[in-house]
Amino acid sequence: IKLKLPDVGTTIFTIMSQLANEHNAINLGQGFPDFNPDEKLVSLVNEAMINGHNQYPHMPGIPALRIAIADKINQLYSHNYNPDTEITVTNGATEALMSSILSIVHAGDEVIVIEPCYDSYVPCIKLAGGIPVFVSLTPPSQDNPAYSIDWQKVKDAITEKTRLIILNFPHNPTGLTLKSSDLDAIEDLIKDKEIFLIGDEVYEHIVFGHRPFLSLSTREFLASRSFVISSFGKTYHTTGWKVGYCSAPKALTAEFRKIHQFVVFTVSSPMQHAFAEFMKDPGTYLNLSDFYQKKHDYLYNGLLNTRFKPIKSEGTFFMLADYSEISLINELDFATELTKKHGVTLIPVSAFYKDSSALTSNNNLVRFCFAKKNETLEKALQVLSTI
Amino acid sequence: IKLKLPDVGTTIFTIMSQLANEHNAINLGQGFPDFNPDEKLVSLVNEAMINGHNQYPHMPGIPALRIAIADKINQLYSHNYNPDTEITVTNGATEALMSSILSIVHAGDEVIVIEPCYDSYVPCIKLAGGIPVFVSLTPPSQDNPAYSIDWQKVKDAITEKTRLIILNFPHNPTGLTLKSSDLDAIEDLIKDKEIFLIGDEVYEHIVFGHRPFLSLSTREFLASRSFVISSFGKTYHTTGWKVGYCSAPKALTAEFRKIHQFVVFTVSSPMQHAFAEFMKDPGTYLNLSDFYQKKHDYLYNGLLNTRFKPIKSEGTFFMLADYSEISLINELDFATELTKKHGVTLIPVSAFYKDSSALTSNNNLVRFCFAKKNETLEKALQVLSTI
Ligand SMILES: CSCCC(=O)C(=O)O
Ligand SMILES: CSCCC(=O)C(=O)O
Repeated sequence: IKLKLPDVGTTIFTIMSQLANEHNAINLGQGFPDFNPDEKLVSLVNEAMINGHNQYPHMPGIPALRIAIADKINQLYSHNYNPDTEITVTNGATEALMSSILSIVHAGDEVIVIEPCYDSYVPCIKLAGGIPVFVSLTPPSQDNPAYSIDWQKVKDAITEKTRLIILNFPHNPTGLTLKSSDLDAIEDLIKDKEIFLIGDEVYEHIVFGHRPFLSLSTREFLASRSFVISSFGKTYHTTGWKVGYCSAPKALTAEFRKIHQFVVFTVSSPMQHAFAEFMKDPGTYLNLSDFYQKKHDYLYNGLLNTRFKPIKSEGTFFMLADYSEISLINELDFATELTKKHGVTLIPVSAFYKDSSALTSNNNLVRFCFAKKNETLEKALQVLSTI
Repeated sequence: IKLKLPDVGTTIFTIMSQLANEHNAINLGQGFPDFNPDEKLVSLVNEAMINGHNQYPHMPGIPALRIAIADKINQLYSHNYNPDTEITVTNGATEALMSSILSIVHAGDEVIVIEPCYDSYVPCIKLAGGIPVFVSLTPPSQDNPAYSIDWQKVKDAITEKTRLIILNFPHNPTGLTLKSSDLDAIEDLIKDKEIFLIGDEVYEHIVFGHRPFLSLSTREFLASRSFVISSFGKTYHTTGWKVGYCSAPKALTAEFRKIHQFVVFTVSSPMQHAFAEFMKDPGTYLNLSDFYQKKHDYLYNGLLNTRFKPIKSEGTFFMLADYSEISLINELDFATELTKKHGVTLIPVSAFYKDSSALTSNNNLVRFCFAKKNETLEKALQVLSTI
């Protein structure tokens, strides 16, 4: 068979979770909680099924859920999306990414992605016939202990063919967030050009240090160019329910829905009804940053007692750590050995770089997911402190 | 914005369901039951959530469900798919169609589709950069009161560039099924060429007159070339849960999963656990043909007392009828008026033809969905008998 994505294998998250299962390891790899969603949310799904919400719901999502989403965005980011024409409920952020990229990228278009980046972007771009163009985050240094983004490098990457820039903040895997000056810089980059944005904002409710989260939709102009994507899975501890959404101005949403209707047609009806009811209470998402800040700090402080050197995150439920004091082997081998020999599973950061051969390259960095019960984190730290 | 699918609007099924809602009409349009799934299935979903199946399940589907699917296929069609490497659980048949087409069709490839055809095929082909090539079913005539397929016409449509043929039997909207001689003809068409097949077999369990259902997977050679797609939505009255699957030989499944992992990543965990348990009892699908045969016959006989001329279906939960005794206006206008004036919603068959202008062309045919409670069918027939 002539292969469609010759460079692509099974996603690293599946590979590492499978390895964790095989070795009965503590899985701090793939980004999902090891605890349950709120019981009330579960019983709302059950009620929805019993009340007969079991057939095709509206193609763009049920009105009640789209209204609840628009209300939330309006409250938090002061942007008024029209729930009828500007919000679409999707099969998780994954589907929203695929459908938005397929709806805006034509054969030969260039798409700028910021590395390290989530592993679905580049295959989506290639399926649309587009050309990924990579700009790297500036890695931590002695002056600046965190990753940072140099917008001049993004500017330099823009050509006549640039059609889309994919922005993912809070950033997976580095935890970097955007500041107000970053939004200024992005406006400046695209204001005279027909360039669109995807804002992958699935960690919008997980931001640390009492920072405000600066969604692309907080700026009228940026919102007018953006597909802004979020995920109920990350917010409500339901990664296995596959519900997310995409907010975009009317003209972009019209194109998005054309694709969405043939990618999945629609999204689970009982889950939509449950979220529509549950998210009416803002307490269900406003406390998430505090909840995860505690886990972040617990893991960070715990790692200080090991030979891993952790890097603080500004958001997400991920944290990077340098393992060069322990070993200098490449990241994939290190992560594989750690699972096999010590029973703790992490993600090699090289998996977030374009070059599939980067999988065997080496910055001595691994990613921890701390969306785990305290006892899970404790057990993992116990093991890691012995290495 | 430069449009990606300039010829495509909102799917006809959404348009007609929306119109039905607005006019509070009896909706015999879009293909979904107006009754509930088995209560046991609902409580299995609830149990799965309570038992903690709320996070990302395995990317290709949970093993228990893939095994249950493979067992069923083996029982019914005597083909041994390996559940590990040849079965993938999908977000309904819609996602399976998109992912299979994206995984096999390269830019410039020709794909043969049989018209009338389901409205997602052509947009999927175009998104993959492929070229749809249309072959029409032979319409009913005085000699033959049903649609039929002329394989010589398919043979004539094959060129050097043909890469895929999409076969949908039992056929939506005509209800046509394949006979053993049809499978012979298909084998003959592709045996010396590198042409693949998609078998959209979502109505596999709804076949009338005690015909056996001849899946592409009943033939070793055809199975070796095919993505065979089915839908729990149609079988278990759960169109709103979005679970289906794709069976394909190992090499095709490997390509399929590469795409699937970036289209949706995976499928609702609680629903997968529920189906895995529920489908262990073959009674849950073996009685479906009888169940729908009664509704088919009830609608058919009822329509004989109206000025619609129904055409018997061999399978699916759809039936076509000619309305030329009532009116000669085009199908979309007829269906729209019927909703607005008489409160019964049907689907214009012209929506299943390539040419978007065919929407205003005219064969005086409408499609009825009879996946409805007997009282719903009765009410609709009462109205239609007055027209
Ligand atoms: C869809 S599996 C990946 C989950 C995730 O977002 C991550 O681990 O980065
Ligand atoms: C996905 S909506 C269409 C449902 C269906 O299969 C039909 O009505 O033909």
